[in-house]
Amino acid sequence: MSKINENYLKLGGNYLFAELKKRTEAFQKENPSADIIRLGIGDVTRPLSPAVIQAMHKAVDEMADPATFRGYGPEQGYDFLIRAIIEQEYRTRGVELDTDEVFVSDGSKCDVANIQEIFSAGCRVAICDPVYPVYLDSNVMAGRAVTFLPSTSANGFSPELPEQDVDLIYLCSPNNPTGTVLTRAGLERWVDYALRKNAVILFDSAYSSYIRDPELPGSIYEIPRAKEVAIEFKSFSKTAGFTGLRCAFTVVPKALGKLNAFWNRRQCTKFNGVAYVIQRAAEAVYSEQGRGETAEMIAYYMGNAAVIRAGLSKAGFEVYGGENAPYIWWKLPRGLDSMDFAAKLLKSCQVVGTPGVGFGACGEGYFRLTAFGSRARTEEAVARIMDMEI
Amino acid sequence: MSKINENYLKLGGNYLFAELKKRTEAFQKENPSADIIRLGIGDVTRPLSPAVIQAMHKAVDEMADPATFRGYGPEQGYDFLIRAIIEQEYRTRGVELDTDEVFVSDGSKCDVANIQEIFSAGCRVAICDPVYPVYLDSNVMAGRAVTFLPSTSANGFSPELPEQDVDLIYLCSPNNPTGTVLTRAGLERWVDYALRKNAVILFDSAYSSYIRDPELPGSIYEIPRAKEVAIEFKSFSKTAGFTGLRCAFTVVPKALGKLNAFWNRRQCTKFNGVAYVIQRAAEAVYSEQGRGETAEMIAYYMGNAAVIRAGLSKAGFEVYGGENAPYIWWKLPRGLDSMDFAAKLLKSCQVVGTPGVGFGACGEGYFRLTAFGSRARTEEAVARIMDMEI
Repeated sequence: MSKINENYLKLGGNYLFAELKKRTEAFQKENPSADIIRLGIGDVTRPLSPAVIQAMHKAVDEMADPATFRGYGPEQGYDFLIRAIIEQEYRTRGVELDTDEVFVSDGSKCDVANIQEIFSAGCRVAICDPVYPVYLDSNVMAGRAVTFLPSTSANGFSPELPEQDVDLIYLCSPNNPTGTVLTRAGLERWVDYALRKNAVILFDSAYSSYIRDPELPGSIYEIPRAKEVAIEFKSFSKTAGFTGLRCAFTVVPKALGKLNAFWNRRQCTKFNGVAYVIQRAAEAVYSEQGRGETAEMIAYYMGNAAVIRAGLSKAGFEVYGGENAPYIWWKLPRGLDSMDFAAKLLKSCQVVGTPGVGFGACGEGYFRLTAFGSRARTEEAVARIMDMEI
Repeated sequence: MSKINENYLKLGGNYLFAELKKRTEAFQKENPSADIIRLGIGDVTRPLSPAVIQAMHKAVDEMADPATFRGYGPEQGYDFLIRAIIEQEYRTRGVELDTDEVFVSDGSKCDVANIQEIFSAGCRVAICDPVYPVYLDSNVMAGRAVTFLPSTSANGFSPELPEQDVDLIYLCSPNNPTGTVLTRAGLERWVDYALRKNAVILFDSAYSSYIRDPELPGSIYEIPRAKEVAIEFKSFSKTAGFTGLRCAFTVVPKALGKLNAFWNRRQCTKFNGVAYVIQRAAEAVYSEQGRGETAEMIAYYMGNAAVIRAGLSKAGFEVYGGENAPYIWWKLPRGLDSMDFAAKLLKSCQVVGTPGVGFGACGEGYFRLTAFGSRARTEEAVARIMDMEI
């Protein structure tokens, strides 16, 4: 079997997450009456907004009529959506983009995983630790070694520049899992590094709509000259509850040289565009009604984040995130082992969260709670935690 | 810029297809009143069936209600759809599959392009010529050299086994562009080769629902022991007019060893599943109503194919395909250059088709017409061609 891609054998299994799921299921089985509250998974729970639902019904009806039926669309996305994205996501931040710099896709996960294909097999990659596991796994599959950039409370979750030169840097801000956001100065430092070293920044900004502080950058292109060095990923998943609809977009500026044409060629060869009805749903997020409803949805989740932050802080814990992101990154007292703590939390108060070590070695000693539950259940979870002896 | 994937520089541009489009547009501009009939593109034109439309409206409403809202689904696809696929596509052919052998995706294009990732960079690849360009391009991007298997009227469009051993073989049946179908004996020969050489067959069967002849295999798994050597790709695009909805599926049997786990890992890492509403639409294709409506749609297109075949045959031309596939592969008389012929056809009778050379060197001297137009326009195109001096 020499023909298989043996790099796959080097991947860490999803053992930890599978193990966690198994433990929760086993606990529920042993304790069938236990009322488990799940604040572990980063999935939304609020239904789609009325503006989105109306747009989808309309688009479905168009698909039923020969005069308005749509077959293959442009691989890059429909012009109506690309123009709405440029207008609402970028022009509002003072950033100008051409329509052939924006690529609509079926998810940021796909794009951040696939983007490495347009870079050489030998390029040197830096990834923050802890972080969303897809950056690492997609590079391991391609046979690349990776440098980790520790990101902990010791450096304010703003990692140091790599000691050895790298070609590709993955940054995620607002960050999953730490919920922290790179400041303008923090981002400027990275853009400056990339300009000096001829490196490319892969900027995952899927949670930018959760930023409340107007001083924090919501796009890397707010930083001067970032278009020369950065590719940016944004998503409708968390912004508008599209995790079950699948729509996102990636910006590859033409100032990056051949990379714009390479990504276009990659998408045209290996992807066939997002469903028309889904793109109409995404367009509706930017309508006046859609913007209002989306803002309400985000405010709801950020209300949950505030409940968790306030509860844990009041109990004397060190907590990060949750102010400009839907994740709360809880620094466990006395350097507690995060896997052990997950088991204890489940047993003592039937609350599920995610052990920090699941996002990288530097996540050990931390614990992630998400703001995507319902308000009542989030309040109940916090009340239970505050009653628990930790 | 040593960090870019330089394999992309070796790709043939999409120049030919872009050039064709440009020529058609230029002709229309110079002749604004010209009534152009497009039989070039392989895209459907009939609207979605009522069963599919109803299922989508219902699923959209579910997304509006917190009690029935769906966020992230399983990367592999929802169980309701996988079970319907196994029941309707495979059990009906006497093939048994487990639910973890079927992977739902957003298109066969994506899957046939991505599948090479789970094989080693050094494996030897064989591709038929002429054929759908994605097999070649995705391997060029990965830096692999490719062996071509000529497929012409001289060998009845059933290519010879490769002279030198290969590890991966792409087969497409019913074939795009030739419209021909591998017989049971033809497929048995390939399965036998793969078993002997420890090779893997990548079987693209996206057009299998157009097969009318009950003697022709609609799945490679109808051949004994094929599960040990073959991955199969099928799609709702042409079966049920889903080119604008995006849904397909790939079968990776567990008898293939690690490849099943590797593809699962690939999809879980780089893909986030197909939208719930789209999967409900695909499920509806298999309902009693859906099956009837889908059969009518296919019969309509196959009626067009018969019109084209009959017209060209009556005029004395050598034609292939169109009996068990929606493509007609027209062998041009006197070895005419296919690009020149495209220009002549457009000028003389305002009909657009695709020059065979666009699908590979062995497609030179052939011309592809598709059955996806309306009946009236197809009849009109054939009448014009029959009046033309070729």
